[in-house]
Amino acid sequence: MTPAVPTALLADRIRRAGEVAAAQDTDLLLVTPGPDLRYLLGVSGESHERLTCLVLPAAGHRAPPALVVPRLEAPGFAGLPLDELGIEVVTWRDGEDPHLLVSDLGGGPSRVGLADAMPAAHVLPLRAAFPDVEQVLAGPVMRELRMRKDSAEVAELRAAGAAIDRVHARMGEILKPGRTEAQVGADIADAIVAEGHAEAAFVIVGSGPNGSSPHHDVSDRVIESGDVVVIDIGGPLPSGYNSDSTRTYAVGGEPPAAVREAYAVLQDAQERAVSAVRPGVTAEQVDAAARRPITAAGLGERFVHRTGHGIGLEVHEEPYIVAGSALALEPGMAFSVEPGIYFDGDWGARIEDIVVVTEDGCERLNNRPRDLVVL
Amino acid sequence: MTPAVPTALLADRIRRAGEVAAAQDTDLLLVTPGPDLRYLLGVSGESHERLTCLVLPAAGHRAPPALVVPRLEAPGFAGLPLDELGIEVVTWRDGEDPHLLVSDLGGGPSRVGLADAMPAAHVLPLRAAFPDVEQVLAGPVMRELRMRKDSAEVAELRAAGAAIDRVHARMGEILKPGRTEAQVGADIADAIVAEGHAEAAFVIVGSGPNGSSPHHDVSDRVIESGDVVVIDIGGPLPSGYNSDSTRTYAVGGEPPAAVREAYAVLQDAQERAVSAVRPGVTAEQVDAAARRPITAAGLGERFVHRTGHGIGLEVHEEPYIVAGSALALEPGMAFSVEPGIYFDGDWGARIEDIVVVTEDGCERLNNRPRDLVVL
Repeated sequence: MTPAVPTALLADRIRRAGEVAAAQDTDLLLVTPGPDLRYLLGVSGESHERLTCLVLPAAGHRAPPALVVPRLEAPGFAGLPLDELGIEVVTWRDGEDPHLLVSDLGGGPSRVGLADAMPAAHVLPLRAAFPDVEQVLAGPVMRELRMRKDSAEVAELRAAGAAIDRVHARMGEILKPGRTEAQVGADIADAIVAEGHAEAAFVIVGSGPNGSSPHHDVSDRVIESGDVVVIDIGGPLPSGYNSDSTRTYAVGGEPPAAVREAYAVLQDAQERAVSAVRPGVTAEQVDAAARRPITAAGLGERFVHRTGHGIGLEVHEEPYIVAGSALALEPGMAFSVEPGIYFDGDWGARIEDIVVVTEDGCERLNNRPRDLVVL
Repeated sequence: MTPAVPTALLADRIRRAGEVAAAQDTDLLLVTPGPDLRYLLGVSGESHERLTCLVLPAAGHRAPPALVVPRLEAPGFAGLPLDELGIEVVTWRDGEDPHLLVSDLGGGPSRVGLADAMPAAHVLPLRAAFPDVEQVLAGPVMRELRMRKDSAEVAELRAAGAAIDRVHARMGEILKPGRTEAQVGADIADAIVAEGHAEAAFVIVGSGPNGSSPHHDVSDRVIESGDVVVIDIGGPLPSGYNSDSTRTYAVGGEPPAAVREAYAVLQDAQERAVSAVRPGVTAEQVDAAARRPITAAGLGERFVHRTGHGIGLEVHEEPYIVAGSALALEPGMAFSVEPGIYFDGDWGARIEDIVVVTEDGCERLNNRPRDLVVL
């Protein structure tokens, strides 16, 4: 029951994937269930032991586009406009070797690109089925497409951002002293679904010392008055596009001056990083814009992770906003800007917005207050 | 917040994995997040672009056991008894190459076994990091362990079976004419969680003609009085062990004689297959026991899939109950027995129980009535 992606859009994505593959000297893309398949066909398919694989030739390669599907699963693809897309459905039955079937359809490639998510259980049999054929990742091809969101994708990310903002708006009811992180997390997960997500993909409730672990999830720790609490939450809409937003809350009153001062540095850093986002600026320049004021305040060692990650059909995808990435930003690129500071065993704070690069700057998809909200 | 697996049990699993690997001439197992990691460490870990990998030497290989983890993720493994298990934690930071780190730890293997679930995004870099080292799947090693459930695993599967039986017991309230499959499916998903599952992993509501597609999920079709409806549902308990049970219902009164007669053949076939399960019997013999009466009734072509699949930390795992498998059943093996008959575009029926092989037969983990329940 997921929203259908317009056929013209799918046709364009498939065409461009073939062109980029050709430009990268990859003859054939082999795409098993996952975000790449969802991007190209509008459905992610089911990932289990039976092989489902889109066989997508590079522009100019002689193989015909085909979707290899277990006979049992074929009805699940019946709703797709495969005829309009010129994709032949090839089914196989238990007992047949689907990997040989894929190589029979491959048109003798010299190099095949495998979806990054393809499990080893298919990668190794495909290597045997395509002897002397070089295997590379399809990621470098797919990222060229998926990194630049079209307007339909931006609309979905905008809707996802608004949905997770509504969850943060309810934190006053949910985040209270005396409750465990797990209890708060369960209510947040319910709210994430209630506000329109297909599921709650991740819920981080890092209270007090747990806030100093950037990837803490939840625990049975009872939240106390005076705790600083990091709430990092998100999930996919039914369309598959994800939300991801972090706010930091002070429960039960104003925190001490030292905390407020460090937080002010973090908030300034997040603001400067977002302000730096525009076409032509590099990913590492955005990372540096966030890191500079934190380092200047003597907190550089507290900011232990990259500034952000791309987001779309995956919560983490290209472009990564990290030192060493000279990638120049372009309109349509969507990513998080989420500097954080972590005082081991004591407390932590992080502020995260998703932004989309526009013609002359960026649009923020998360708009809840960014100061240290006192509950 | 998942139930902890006893350390002694994990230590035994890790020891046996090393012994089976050695017996298969595999020097090193590389286990990324997924069911194999959950089996060995009690946690499945998080699967995303940063590499987390258990480096597990075969018995006699010189590499030390190690868990390679992104520095950010390390706190998530802090609760594990890694010291008691003799596993060193090796963290890496953004910017380092974790695949080279794994090869540095590998002790110069000639052959490495990769977890079946490892994504190509790690399989290919690991091939480059271990030049001239043969990559094979870890599946053949892990299956030898995971296929034979210990008593703690059987207890979890028993609890999962009871939980999904409670959901089927509520079908009278949920499955009614005038509702869409999607509405019924949503209520079933809620019931699956309410009865103790961590999530509803799959919900098939195949009403009328949709019942003739074995892997149909749900649609907006309105269920009508007189429909035969296939309900195939399940999901994991918080421990990770899965339920999976199918029952077929007749909504709004007795179906016609032709349907009742075909269903009686199916019910007899499922009963005969379950009765055939005991140590020493082969998987293909169980498949044949289900197929024989259906074929004898002239319905052989209607039974389009294998008779069953193993179940545990995955919904589909070894042993597969399929023609051509000479695997001899042993106590502790757990799998589905689920013959089905499908009349394209008209109706379908399936009966599925999970069974565990005992010393002298098998224990059924699903015990709801197996006849065509009239609602």
